[in-house]
Amino acid sequence: MAPALEAKQVVLPQEGETTVAPNNFLNSVVNDATHRSKVTVIGSGNWGSVAAKLIASNTLRLSSFHDEVRMWVYEETLRSGEQLTDVINRTNENVKYLPGIKLGKNVVADPDLESAVKDSNMLVFVTPHQFMEGICKRLVGKIREDSEAISLVKGMEIAVEKFSEATVGYRLNREVAERWVQLFYTHYFIVTAVQDVEGVELCGTLKNVVAIAAGFVDGLEMGNNTKAAIMRLGLREMKAFSKLLFPSVKDSTFFESCGVADLITTCLGGRNRKVAEAYARNGGKRSFDEVEAEMLQGQKLQGVSTASEVYEVLSHRGWLELFPLFSTVHEISTGLLPPSAIVEYSEKLPKSF
Amino acid sequence: MAPALEAKQVVLPQEGETTVAPNNFLNSVVNDATHRSKVTVIGSGNWGSVAAKLIASNTLRLSSFHDEVRMWVYEETLRSGEQLTDVINRTNENVKYLPGIKLGKNVVADPDLESAVKDSNMLVFVTPHQFMEGICKRLVGKIREDSEAISLVKGMEIAVEKFSEATVGYRLNREVAERWVQLFYTHYFIVTAVQDVEGVELCGTLKNVVAIAAGFVDGLEMGNNTKAAIMRLGLREMKAFSKLLFPSVKDSTFFESCGVADLITTCLGGRNRKVAEAYARNGGKRSFDEVEAEMLQGQKLQGVSTASEVYEVLSHRGWLELFPLFSTVHEISTGLLPPSAIVEYSEKLPKSF
Repeated sequence: MAPALEAKQVVLPQEGETTVAPNNFLNSVVNDATHRSKVTVIGSGNWGSVAAKLIASNTLRLSSFHDEVRMWVYEETLRSGEQLTDVINRTNENVKYLPGIKLGKNVVADPDLESAVKDSNMLVFVTPHQFMEGICKRLVGKIREDSEAISLVKGMEIAVEKFSEATVGYRLNREVAERWVQLFYTHYFIVTAVQDVEGVELCGTLKNVVAIAAGFVDGLEMGNNTKAAIMRLGLREMKAFSKLLFPSVKDSTFFESCGVADLITTCLGGRNRKVAEAYARNGGKRSFDEVEAEMLQGQKLQGVSTASEVYEVLSHRGWLELFPLFSTVHEISTGLLPPSAIVEYSEKLPKSF
Repeated sequence: MAPALEAKQVVLPQEGETTVAPNNFLNSVVNDATHRSKVTVIGSGNWGSVAAKLIASNTLRLSSFHDEVRMWVYEETLRSGEQLTDVINRTNENVKYLPGIKLGKNVVADPDLESAVKDSNMLVFVTPHQFMEGICKRLVGKIREDSEAISLVKGMEIAVEKFSEATVGYRLNREVAERWVQLFYTHYFIVTAVQDVEGVELCGTLKNVVAIAAGFVDGLEMGNNTKAAIMRLGLREMKAFSKLLFPSVKDSTFFESCGVADLITTCLGGRNRKVAEAYARNGGKRSFDEVEAEMLQGQKLQGVSTASEVYEVLSHRGWLELFPLFSTVHEISTGLLPPSAIVEYSEKLPKSF
């Protein structure tokens, strides 16, 4: 079993985002048929290795891609004294981060970032978030003019080929989006392109706030009916909030895997849900921060900071009453309200809900 | 704790449906302010008693309703020798079907069907499905000319006032629908009126097919990511199928509690899911019918018969390929395909998915 990573969203970043290679990927020159696309996976942790395996099976199969997939590996010396890249290239396995799974013989591990990207026009970023900025700075001037990039914000449970899904958000160029879909699509991994970057991104962020609400319901042992009701109200707030911020956001995006499916996954199994459950079980006796710090060894939940940011937007614009679930999550996690408040705002629900 | 009944859908039946009082309830004369609505609950099982309790708290609070709520009780003699209606009227509890919960002093149990309905203009049907036809026949000519009726197809987990939701589908008259919403709405039970009878009804039926698919995934231990993906594809097929059959069906209905929330509840906890899980765990060694018969003591799952009916429609209209999840559920439950087929049709997925 591969580790159960939380979510499975693929976001095609927009022009000018700082977390990915700058400037030119969405409006980049589309390869013509005489030039095959070449792919480099930047990162080789668990999820980076999964991505490389999946991509490599597709580049072998599809004539529009070079067979070889480069994988940039942050070099490590293993206990055996060997270098990680050497072992990957010899055994075809990332023995440290994805043991037991063959990556495909066309995956080439490369410890040199510059060399790993220099021939590629499709860059797949799968490093931890905190390393992105440094890596992007190192890449300035080193990547091809026609490069496109995609950021795989979260992981997936597909190393063992379990059926799963993802959404690629794109802004303008359907052709670019379709090429990314081709690169990832397999019979066990359904990828859909959606012309709604903001919708896809906001789904990926806001679902974590709903997962905290779902965790409170779990901790209070209120049952599946209540949990489903809360998840549904959460989905409604996700949709309403996204559309208020970006009128271009489409309703249909919330029926995509980035919407309802990721929301379900996150509310059934994610870390946000888990910590919130533990907090509610405690009856709110210890602070949310304490429970979070203890369970995550100092890491922070995305849902908590997102709830706080959302709360700020809502207060600032005078929308708090329109979003009782979002605002209540923030008020509970900061200790202003008890966990049971998560089901006590129905009289505040706006008529449109 | 009240028994966890499966779902929580409230369907306002359409004119001419045979399962409810015939003819005149949707286009009925709307009471004017000088005539308060009077409510009779027809049925006094667990869920009928829950409905009576909830309604009684609202009729006390709202001036547009008579305080008294009649509840028709199928009379039984208790072990103590007392009649059930006498005990309900003395203790204010349905000691047999909802013990420990006070119904409200304004609930009056009545063993005589004709007497129970004669003054009421709002009839709430909560008897088991198989008794509906006989009861409706007995009511012909006995009910008020201006009667409206609602059928509570499924139960809820709200006797202990857990937060929950329901959708009332209506065809034409928003005012009638709003009166039903008023009757049921409480701070722990959010009721929404939706002008989409077919959409609400099809949600209530088709979700059970998706729950069987979800049960197969559970039995195969494929994890939450896969389960969420299957639920999402199921929701898409529910929507697409409903819209093909009834072009009037609205996308937004599937965001209502009858859509996404009931689907989640049913896929997390319902009987359809449970039996399908057991079947898949068995590796399909015993027939689905056998597993079903054993687990349900001879009762039948709604999802199985619905899948079969849907399959017939799909074959007949040449739509099988458009609905791989629905058709695969039928093919698995009839033994044509193994349970693992539930995640093996992605290459058949139509482009629009």
